This record gives sequence, C-alpha cells and structure tokens, in this order.
Amino acid sequence: MDAEQLRENAHKMVDFIADYYKTIENFPVLSQVQPGYLRELLPDSAPTQPESLQHIFDDIQAKILPGVTHWQSPNYFAYYPSNSSIAGFLGEMLSAGLNIVGFSWITSPAATELEMIVLDWLAKLIKLPDDFLSTGQGGGVIQGTASEAVLVVVLAARDNFLRRVGKNALEKLVVYASDQTHSALQKACQIAGIHPENCRMLTTNSTTSYALSPIVLNEAISNDITSGLIPFFLCGTVGTTSSTAVDPLGELGKIAKNNGMWFHVDAAYAGSACICPEYRHYIDGVEEADSFNMNAHKWFLTNFDCSVLWIKDRTALIQSLSTSPEFLKNKASQANMVVDYKDWQIPLGRRFRSLKLWMVLRLYGLENLQSYIRNHITLAKNFEEFVTQDPRFEIVTPRIYSLVYAVNSTGKIFISHTVLSGTYILRFAVGAPLTEESHVNAAWKVLQDEASALLSTSLG
Amino acid sequence: MDAEQLRENAHKMVDFIADYYKTIENFPVLSQVQPGYLRELLPDSAPTQPESLQHIFDDIQAKILPGVTHWQSPNYFAYYPSNSSIAGFLGEMLSAGLNIVGFSWITSPAATELEMIVLDWLAKLIKLPDDFLSTGQGGGVIQGTASEAVLVVVLAARDNFLRRVGKNALEKLVVYASDQTHSALQKACQIAGIHPENCRMLTTNSTTSYALSPIVLNEAISNDITSGLIPFFLCGTVGTTSSTAVDPLGELGKIAKNNGMWFHVDAAYAGSACICPEYRHYIDGVEEADSFNMNAHKWFLTNFDCSVLWIKDRTALIQSLSTSPEFLKNKASQANMVVDYKDWQIPLGRRFRSLKLWMVLRLYGLENLQSYIRNHITLAKNFEEFVTQDPRFEIVTPRIYSLVYAVNSTGKIFISHTVLSGTYILRFAVGAPLTEESHVNAAWKVLQDEASALLSTSLG
Repeated sequence: MDAEQLRENAHKMVDFIADYYKTIENFPVLSQVQPGYLRELLPDSAPTQPESLQHIFDDIQAKILPGVTHWQSPNYFAYYPSNSSIAGFLGEMLSAGLNIVGFSWITSPAATELEMIVLDWLAKLIKLPDDFLSTGQGGGVIQGTASEAVLVVVLAARDNFLRRVGKNALEKLVVYASDQTHSALQKACQIAGIHPENCRMLTTNSTTSYALSPIVLNEAISNDITSGLIPFFLCGTVGTTSSTAVDPLGELGKIAKNNGMWFHVDAAYAGSACICPEYRHYIDGVEEADSFNMNAHKWFLTNFDCSVLWIKDRTALIQSLSTSPEFLKNKASQANMVVDYKDWQIPLGRRFRSLKLWMVLRLYGLENLQSYIRNHITLAKNFEEFVTQDPRFEIVTPRIYSLVYAVNSTGKIFISHTVLSGTYILRFAVGAPLTEESHVNAAWKVLQDEASALLSTSLG
Repeated sequence: MDAEQLRENAHKMVDFIADYYKTIENFPVLSQVQPGYLRELLPDSAPTQPESLQHIFDDIQAKILPGVTHWQSPNYFAYYPSNSSIAGFLGEMLSAGLNIVGFSWITSPAATELEMIVLDWLAKLIKLPDDFLSTGQGGGVIQGTASEAVLVVVLAARDNFLRRVGKNALEKLVVYASDQTHSALQKACQIAGIHPENCRMLTTNSTTSYALSPIVLNEAISNDITSGLIPFFLCGTVGTTSSTAVDPLGELGKIAKNNGMWFHVDAAYAGSACICPEYRHYIDGVEEADSFNMNAHKWFLTNFDCSVLWIKDRTALIQSLSTSPEFLKNKASQANMVVDYKDWQIPLGRRFRSLKLWMVLRLYGLENLQSYIRNHITLAKNFEEFVTQDPRFEIVTPRIYSLVYAVNSTGKIFISHTVLSGTYILRFAVGAPLTEESHVNAAWKVLQDEASALLSTSLG
C-alpha cells in the first residue's frame, strides 16, 4: 500500500468507471450470457506472479461487463432500483479508503457518532416521531438490508416475550402480516425459530388495494388467543413489493398495542418518498410503531448497502444482540457512555456506511432530493397514461409512488413481474437515477411492439 | 449522475485518500476524542440546499478524521488487522461503481460466477479438500463477517436436525466449542434459539495451549446424550482470538462424525497463513469439517468486508435459507441451472464483493501474498524476542502466526487485551499492511517506556 501507487491506480479506476457511465446505454441492460459462461473464460487457479492492472481492466471489459446486469442503466425498470450517485459513490470510496471496522464506539468514534447524527437528520426529514431519535431512548442504525432490519426486530420482540412467558414458549409465538409482505419476514421467522404454521400471512385482495385489513387481523388474533397461542409481532408495509400497497398503520398499530405486540413498519422502498410533504401521509400512524425501516440504497441515491432501521426502545435490541467478550471491553463501553452498534445488528464488524448517506444529504440537499423523487413519480404517471390509452394493457392496482403495472406482455427491456389475485402482472418500476422521459417513452414502445408481435403471432 | 462530474469529483476523492495514506502516521492511531464530540460540531438537521464538495472535504479533515481510529496505521496492533490494499480498494471502487445487487444469478451473472470461481481459486491455495469446491456438491460464498458465516451453518445444522427429530426438539439441541471460541458462536446460538444452557463452552487451560481437548469434548457429549439431549454442532477454531490456539481438527472431526454432528471450522484470522506450505499443517484435519471459514478482510489484503465460507453440502444451507417469492422467479433459477446466493446468506441483497478478492489475487499473485504473511510473522517473532529479553514481561502462550502477548503493562499505542486463565494479557497483533520493522521496534519502546514509568510510579 504505497500512497503514490494508490493514487496512480485509483485515478485509472475513476476513469474506467466514468467511461462506464458514459457508455452504459450501449450494454444490453439485462445480461445476455448463459449459465457457466465465465468459467470458460477464466483460468482454473490464481496466478503465482502478479498481473498488470491493464490486463485486469481488459478482462473486466471483455469478460465481466458482458455478465453484468446494469442496475444503473436508465433502461432498468425491474425489481426495485438500486441507486448510485456521485455523492454515494464518493462516500463508498472514502469508507473503503479508511477501511475501519466500527463495531464499538472506540474502534472509530466518528463512525458511530456520524451514524447517530445522520439518522437523526433523516428521521427529521421524513418527520418520524421524536421517540425514534437517538437523543431519547431510541435511535437509528444502518443495517445492510431490510432483511436484516426485520430479523433483528423479530429477535428483539421474540426475546422480550420469551423473557416474560418462558423460553419454552417459542412454539406458541405468532407473527402477523399481509400476504403482500416481503419474503424477508418469513425468512426472519425461519431464522428465529418461529414455527412456519405460526406465521399468519393474511390474505388481501383488490377491495383494499392489497392492504392488510384490520378486521381480518383482529379476527386472526382472536382465534389464536383462543387456541392458546401468543401473538407477538405485527409487520405493516408501506409500499409492498408486488403492488406498492399501503397498510393502514394507525389502525394496525392500535391493534398491536391492544395485544401487547411489537409493531414493525417496512417502508423499505416507499419511505424515501416521505421527504416530500405530499407523500408523507402514507406513513401516517407511524407513531404507533416500535420500529421503522427504509432503504436509502433503493431510491435515495445512496449506494448499496444502506438500510436504515429506527427503533423506539434500543434496549430491546441490545438485550437480544449484545455480546461482551473480554477482548472487546473498553472504558467507554463499560461506563455506558457510548453506543456500540455491534449490539444492534447480526454481524460484529461493520463498515463506515454513514459517510455515504451524509454526503448524499449534503451534496444534494433536501430540495434536490425532493425534485428527484417527484421527477420519477411524474415519469411513472406518464407511463400509466400510456398504458391506460392502450386497450391491450390493463392497470391492475392504482399507481402509488412510481410503480406501474402493465398486464399481459413480455419484455425485451428489463422489467420484472409478480402475481396478484392469481393474475400474472408486469412490474415497471421507475427509479434509476439516469432514467429520463425519453427512456420511459422508449420502454413503452418496446412493450407495445412486443405486445403487437405476440398478438400477431398468436393470431397468425 | 453525470459521468464527467463523477470523473472530476472522484479524482478529487482519490487524491484525498492518497494524501491520507501519505500522512497516516501523523494521526494518533487511537482516536483521542470524547464521547459526543461530533454532535457539537455538526448541525442538527440536513441542509435544504446543496453544499460544495470542498466544504465536505474540509469537514472530513477537521471533524471526521480526529474521530477515526486508524486501522490502516502501521502503529495499529489491536484486535485483529483489517487489511486495505490498492487491489482491495480498486475492487471496492468498481463494486460501488457498478452498484449491482447480485441476489440471484440473473441480477448479474458475473457477480455469482466470479464469486464461485475465485473462491475455488482460494480453496485451492489453502489446499481445502475438493469437496469444498463449487464443481461438486459444495462451494464457497462471501459473507460479510465470520459472525454471519457461523450463524448460517448453525441454522443449516439446526434445521437438518429438526427435520429428523421434530421441530419441538429445539430445546434439546446442544452446541460444543472451547471457551476460547469467538463470541460470534454464542450470538449465533442466541439468534437461532438454541438455549444458552445448551451451549457448552468447554474449559481450556495452558496444558493444551488453550486448545479444546478431545477427551473433555467426548465426556461432555456422553453426559448430554445420557441426559436425553441432542449434540448437533461442534465448532473448532484455528487461531483463537485471545491466544491463537489451534483446536485439533482431525480428532474433533472424528468425534463430530461419530455423533452425527455438524463440524464447523473457524479460521477467520489464521486461515490466510495457510497459503504458505509451512503453516498449512494448522488446518490438517479440515477434511473432517462440514464448513470452513476464513476472513480475507483480516490478513489477506482484501478490504472489509469479505468473510469466506466454504461448505461441503450446499443443499443444507439452501434448505435453511431459501425463499422464492413470485417477484424473484426467473427461468434460470427455476430450471436449477444456476446458484442464487440469496439462499446461502441472511440478507437478500448482496454487493459484488468477489471483484476485490479477484483483484487481490491477480494484482499480487500467490508468491507476493506468501511474502506478505511471512514478513508479518517475522516481525511478530522479533517482537517476541524483545519481550523474552525483558524480565518485566512474560509470554503467556506460545507465539503462533503473528500474535504476541506482553503481560502486565499499559499501552499508549493501540493494542488490545484479553484474559487467559484469569490473567490480564496484552495482545500485540502484527498484521497491518503498512507495518514495518521500525514500527514494531518503536512500539516495543513505547511498551518499555510505559512499563518503566508505571513501575517507578508504583515504587515511588
């Protein structure tokens, strides 16, 4: 690690990456390679002698990039976006450059403290109740993904309950959510040892726009209590993966409170939109929640990974996840003067991820971030109008935020699909930083052309 | 995200980071700030309008760097190292630049395939049995940390057993390891719902150099079987955190096999040394293991995070961790033609982490990597000699790899401590990329001076 060699080589990498962005539209957005393609192109073992950086760049160009699906392409409309930005990228660079491992405050006080401060900033931007701020009993923490966020709160809630009702009651604990909830919840339950038959993924339908019905929820809870089971965890979603359904947080939260349950809100995708006052109402009722999650790496220009979890009672997390081996003990921790984020998460080690979120907030500022969100929503609205005007397509659920459905088609561009009430549906998610009106127009043309081709084939 | 703006700003960040490395020795290696220092320096909320990059650089210099503990400093001897290198840094840059989320093969085939190939390369370098290669029933996967690695195999083993003996038998499952095992195992058990009283952290002492005794293990297993409990998981460690103890893998593995248990080997730190033929014997017996873990981010020049887990039976992991919601289904996955790493880990999303390991292996080559390891071990040997020659210090456990103990002292440089057999011990871990002979010499001088000062104070 020679500073001048680092400088020279890293400048070359900057140019390589800038050139990539300049030419990103030249690549097929969805990689067209076949399974196993790379093994045929690379040697069977690592080299004994060093190779040149130029040789590696050549290989990246010729062998790696053809196998990349270009999430940053303006033509990427699949799943959910994974935003990269200049600020996010610079933050990743700095984090990799410092390469600290911030598990405890002492291992880099700035890493812990900047995370607390920046997550307070973000909580204020989306107007979370003060209970979620680090200045009280709560606070925010950056997890890798929403899967880890929901897992740690399931664990905190599980252990809270088991302390009260006895540790052999695990098989009686019941989780509630809608059938539109992200699969991460079921995975978290599986990891935590919650019995699969105690995971109530309650059926939704178009009458509630696929939101969880408080009536259905209440009924399920009553039945379970009658059967001697113990309701302990409720997950509400704001912006479900299949149809951006919004669960009624206020009503759900009251039910959770009445039954002494933990109430978690998954706003992984849609949370970002709440920095705009006109969309903030989607999380009305969040004051009833015990924990709230949004992914800054989806639609908030912060490079992956940066999943933000806020919690009202940080003690619950720490009781579930803390360890204190001798070799990690230090004065500041022992005196309870500091936050040690190792006790808020699954792994011990952690990167300095708050840098990138801090740089996004500062280099862009709130107003630009709001414009960014609004522009995508406008583009999605445009797309919705295209679809409405073409009788061959149907819109199945109302457009909320920037997710639009186009039905009965195949896609040459990269979009993904889901199933709602048994119907196969195309998902068209607008959210890539480079996406402009022209790209949405072109995508619609692709969809129309493919639909025409399909129809003429099936008729002919 | 404008390519030319990215180029311009990222070049500035490269210079900032290169300058940081150039001046890294000017910083106190352990941050000297007080808890809460940063909140006094930063505003209470995010800016509405954008700020300049220069303003942010100024703040990093004035407000962030004083709160950084410099893991890349040559004077860093605490915990374990967290290696940064030019190759590792370039790999991180490229990964952040592409910013793909490689949860399934289709989301970027190159990310999955490069990971499989590079982990096969690394498995061959440390001469793991062929069962661990991806070309058979096994394979490698990059986890974030060793904590996640041990968690996923505990889950795989747990679910394997519960399928056989019934899901209500969770409270009967017993885990075995030595009391020197990393706290990550106990955390994994807690997460998986293994009862704390069923975690046998078997006592070790200096007669086995703190390695787990097969006799003690056998006795514990027999007792548990007699009590109607179910032994299901054994963790052996090669290079424990407190004293780099090496558990006898061959003997432990046979006991595990005789009892039908899962045998995991944690070589998070020491695994890297096994690329040198003269240290490979420390993992003799690994052929008995079901899973093996080493952290390339510790002592293998690959920036954090990059924890490599190899497994012989990938099906066991997948059975425990797979989810397949409609919105992630695709042809290649449905046809079982590909690996989807989402089913080998806790989170859904994942970064393109194999790039950095690939670049480390190629830019340095095996011979340079071997020299790198050997040089640190030589420096640690030198340090051991210093300590031996000073009657005021005692070496408590033999030096293995690069960990040296100095007893009864305080430290102004950043080293850490542990407790062995009730004795408080200083840990001096040589492994930072920039550490040279002069730094070890200077560190020894600091230790001597501090010891002298302490002794004269206590005498005075």
